[in-house]
Amino acid sequence: MKIYNEPIILQSNKPRDVFNITSRVKAAMEKSGFRDGTILVSSLHASSSVIVSDDETGLLEDMEVLLEKLAPVGAGHRQEGISESSAASHLQSLLLNHQVTVPFTESRLDLDPGQFVLFVELDGLRPRRVIVKVIGE
Amino acid sequence: MKIYNEPIILQSNKPRDVFNITSRVKAAMEKSGFRDGTILVSSLHASSSVIVSDDETGLLEDMEVLLEKLAPVGAGHRQEGISESSAASHLQSLLLNHQVTVPFTESRLDLDPGQFVLFVELDGLRPRRVIVKVIGE
Amino acid sequence: MKIYNEPIILQSNKPRDVFNITSRVKAAMEKSGFRDGTILVSSLHASSSVIVSDDETGLLEDMEVLLEKLAPVGAGHRQEGISESSAASHLQSLLLNHQVTVPFTESRLDLDPGQFVLFVELDGLRPRRVIVKVIGE
Repeated sequence: MKIYNEPIILQSNKPRDVFNITSRVKAAMEKSGFRDGTILVSSLHASSSVIVSDDETGLLEDMEVLLEKLAPVGAGHRQEGISESSAASHLQSLLLNHQVTVPFTESRLDLDPGQFVLFVELDGLRPRRVIVKVIGE
Repeated sequence: MKIYNEPIILQSNKPRDVFNITSRVKAAMEKSGFRDGTILVSSLHASSSVIVSDDETGLLEDMEVLLEKLAPVGAGHRQEGISESSAASHLQSLLLNHQVTVPFTESRLDLDPGQFVLFVELDGLRPRRVIVKVIGE
Repeated sequence: MKIYNEPIILQSNKPRDVFNITSRVKAAMEKSGFRDGTILVSSLHASSSVIVSDDETGLLEDMEVLLEKLAPVGAGHRQEGISESSAASHLQSLLLNHQVTVPFTESRLDLDPGQFVLFVELDGLRPRRVIVKVIGE
């Protein structure tokens, strides 16, 4: 068992965005040379998320509507020193989670054809760093 | 440190269902022969979840009511090519998460008596595959 | 690759509370002697959560308001043998998740200055046990 690290840097020019980073996670697995193991994909920011989900446009729009419904911008947020949109994005990030672990076996990611690794930007317009830590053999 | 893989196949004859798979996760740990490590239990489907929770009937009914309240079927879903119930199940799966990591120590799962590994079927009537990847020594 | 275990015991004298356990997770990493790896931090209780989030007071108050809005105490809960507040705390715990995996590299936790490991007590006044399992090299 060994470890291979390869961070991903992302930047959106929109406040809200979704990046499909499946191919970059797969590339990290391939560079590692490991055939079996797990890949931790974890955001370094409290106002973004990493999920495994389908990448269909309508689903992602639905997700946006859901997040706005559950934790809307400006609904009594008490955080000081940050904008109301940032406050909401922190709460939305907690609902989606900031990390996933992607298993792989025989040099293939254990993902269904309808599953992708997505970075969900909830408060963008700044550089973002995602840890990709491959552990395997 | 080594890896032992043993996928679980499940199929419900109901659209919504919950399977307690704790004993199967424990069996995978025992077959691995490892005494200390972690077990990634991860669904290969975007409309199902894996959680650690109590297995009490009332709690699971409450969970069903909560999911229907937060992400109801047919509430403005924009996904094309899939049914409204499937669209809702994708969103509900995001709220519950599709995976857990179960630690184990001295050949015992690190779970409280009130904690079980549950596969939550959100859009059933089809075969489902759950990755069980034991990493340990 | 090796494993180092160090459970954390916590007890709050309030029903709802948040403990910043980042320094204890860091201490476990340091005691392990590993320079690269992951740390599973997992609650052994179905009515508490472990999250990575900012530790700002206003944000934590917002989170409390959000949880009470999404899964309020006493809203038709069907669980028998436990109090209404405990039923709600189980559901709230599912929304937040009961565990995180903290990566570390070159002997430093891979956390942004705005990210902390928080134990979220949702039904306190009792001792709580959190598994801290460091896997690395």
